Amino acid sequence: MTVSGTLPLSGIKVVDLTRILSGPFCTMLLGDMGADVVKIESPGEGDPIRRQGTIIKGLSTYFASFNRNKRSMALDLRSDEGKQVLAALLEKADVLVENFRPGVLDAMGFDVARLDALNPRLVVASINGYGSSGPYAQRPAFDFIAQAMSGFMSLNGSEGDTPIRTGIPACDLVAGLYAAFGIVNALRARDLTGRGQRVEAAMVDSIMSLFAWYASDHLATGEAAVRSGNDHPITAPYGQFTASDGEIAVAPSTEAVLERFLAEIGLADVRHDPRFTTNTLRMKHRDELNALINTRVLADTQANWVERLNRAGVPCGIVKNLAEAFTDPQVLHREMVLPVEHPGHGVVRMLGFPVKLSETPCRVRHPAPGHGEHTAQIVEDWQLSCGELLARQQPETTAP
Amino acid sequence: MTVSGTLPLSGIKVVDLTRILSGPFCTMLLGDMGADVVKIESPGEGDPIRRQGTIIKGLSTYFASFNRNKRSMALDLRSDEGKQVLAALLEKADVLVENFRPGVLDAMGFDVARLDALNPRLVVASINGYGSSGPYAQRPAFDFIAQAMSGFMSLNGSEGDTPIRTGIPACDLVAGLYAAFGIVNALRARDLTGRGQRVEAAMVDSIMSLFAWYASDHLATGEAAVRSGNDHPITAPYGQFTASDGEIAVAPSTEAVLERFLAEIGLADVRHDPRFTTNTLRMKHRDELNALINTRVLADTQANWVERLNRAGVPCGIVKNLAEAFTDPQVLHREMVLPVEHPGHGVVRMLGFPVKLSETPCRVRHPAPGHGEHTAQIVEDWQLSCGELLARQQPETTAP
Repeated sequence: MTVSGTLPLSGIKVVDLTRILSGPFCTMLLGDMGADVVKIESPGEGDPIRRQGTIIKGLSTYFASFNRNKRSMALDLRSDEGKQVLAALLEKADVLVENFRPGVLDAMGFDVARLDALNPRLVVASINGYGSSGPYAQRPAFDFIAQAMSGFMSLNGSEGDTPIRTGIPACDLVAGLYAAFGIVNALRARDLTGRGQRVEAAMVDSIMSLFAWYASDHLATGEAAVRSGNDHPITAPYGQFTASDGEIAVAPSTEAVLERFLAEIGLADVRHDPRFTTNTLRMKHRDELNALINTRVLADTQANWVERLNRAGVPCGIVKNLAEAFTDPQVLHREMVLPVEHPGHGVVRMLGFPVKLSETPCRVRHPAPGHGEHTAQIVEDWQLSCGELLARQQPETTAP
Repeated sequence: MTVSGTLPLSGIKVVDLTRILSGPFCTMLLGDMGADVVKIESPGEGDPIRRQGTIIKGLSTYFASFNRNKRSMALDLRSDEGKQVLAALLEKADVLVENFRPGVLDAMGFDVARLDALNPRLVVASINGYGSSGPYAQRPAFDFIAQAMSGFMSLNGSEGDTPIRTGIPACDLVAGLYAAFGIVNALRARDLTGRGQRVEAAMVDSIMSLFAWYASDHLATGEAAVRSGNDHPITAPYGQFTASDGEIAVAPSTEAVLERFLAEIGLADVRHDPRFTTNTLRMKHRDELNALINTRVLADTQANWVERLNRAGVPCGIVKNLAEAFTDPQVLHREMVLPVEHPGHGVVRMLGFPVKLSETPCRVRHPAPGHGEHTAQIVEDWQLSCGELLARQQPETTAP
């Protein structure tokens, strides 16, 4: 293997049994890092995401965006032949990733003992809602349910309001990211021990791991968390203010930054107002203080405030919508929007790579695959001796 | 190295220059996986988190919770002697992690060329707000500002309301997690190429990478995203309902699941009501339908509904607060609350490990360090020939 063209996971073979979102996100991260990801899809139906989101010339841009750098093999895992082909794949693979409900893989005939017998070096990763054992293991789990059960929703929204979810599927995707992190670690462990192992990421665990001070404070004191909307729970002023053309976010995190903020908006004197001389007093009179600040902020535009306040060293930003965020010069500079050519369908614009490596940068080696597009190619590349089995389990040719 | 006791990152030496949250979270993930993490702290002050959050017998439980599996070395990086010790550490290290503002490390005398000269195998990871180049590289960045600038806030909250942040520092921590993922990948790349490289995770990029269908739909169509609060943007009914003792989350994702849901709450007939026969109609009359559902849901408790609906195969959960989440039997089964003994301070209960490995599971090898606790030990372990330099840069002994 030459150094040029090498990626961190070059040479790593991944059998990807996942569908929908958490698992495909995980395997995309592995593919972006250079793994050879073989996406197994049932003949006919395939990944349901192929029929969701915006469809352009028959291609789901949602599917395209989260299945780049993978190849697709059509395999009927309900048939004996399909299972034999899967076994042949697993003998050659480094990693298996699945996001079935716990127990489904076992019921298909691929329990721990079988997998170990097939390939003791295999890393077997599972992504699920609650984990594969314990009282809730068999419950159906969705991102929204994990947001609720984890306590995450209780931390969002304003004090008087109801708990609120985040719109993005954070539990799905953070679990997928942890699974990818666990897999690469398990591959390193295999370098040391010679053996594969199981890796598991659950949605509830994953989102709870991001609770930071909410977790440490609650576990130390038992006290309930304060839901503080866009305000900071223990610092004022800090939050969202209204400029002449929209909202800005301002985070004056220290007394020194606060002084610069107030000076820049023409309220330097406010710190001598007896209502606002300390953070404790400012928390008590936050509504009055925020109202006062808004009278000044309203006098200029978002862009001007962000320019002025950043120049003054005050952390500050526009509260952007997606159109603004995806055309932001910094976001474009970071190549967070990638145009990817899909032969026969045109260009799909998708999210770029979230982590940047200087010498072996992630790249789009191939666009998201057509359904079953690479079945024959994978048989050849992986030197599988099961071409006939495949033909038998799969009478119809599945077109891209 | 024996197999028992081996962890995925056993033998990996990490020099950790990070403070506060995003960086320490990243290096904790590496430490949990077995890396030898040396946390560099300025004499006297150290990591500011040592003075934040709930303090018990002089120990910040916030600090304790996110600095386990690290050792602390006191080093004055403003002094020549301190810089020489850092150089000596970097010659022996595998990984350097920093979350300074871009340019600070260079200004300290450790630019790319110097680091490469010191140790061409070194993986150098940076975590920052916007990335180390581009128009915003020098802006101060905070989690809240990244939530605003990325467009993330615009996806949260109800349609008529203002955009809303999530309470948790999601941008900080997801960036830390991506950096950890990038680092382990860069270590694998080094196995192939023999060389280290730079790894960078920016908060804005990191949170945008979780936008899923919001990103793919917007980039395909240019249309604005709908902010739908706790409702599903394109499916009804789906969301938060009110039981007799609190809120539950219900996600009937298909017609079949919806049928089971309505049957279980005694509203089987509702699907024949001309207002509700299709999803399109149900979206149109969502308020009426939700009100109808709430009349039934109100008749039983959260626990009973979750039991009944899960038994019926309807994804469902209690909208828990932190006290409920951290005493949940599944969360405890998953060991997501870890009691860690801190000699002299007692037990600190903290979050467990988010990703589970069966053969080399993460474990607490040592609690969060006292400030500068391991300075001498590290000089010995890493066989640094700079004991005298250390003594010179650090006249005062820094107690834990």
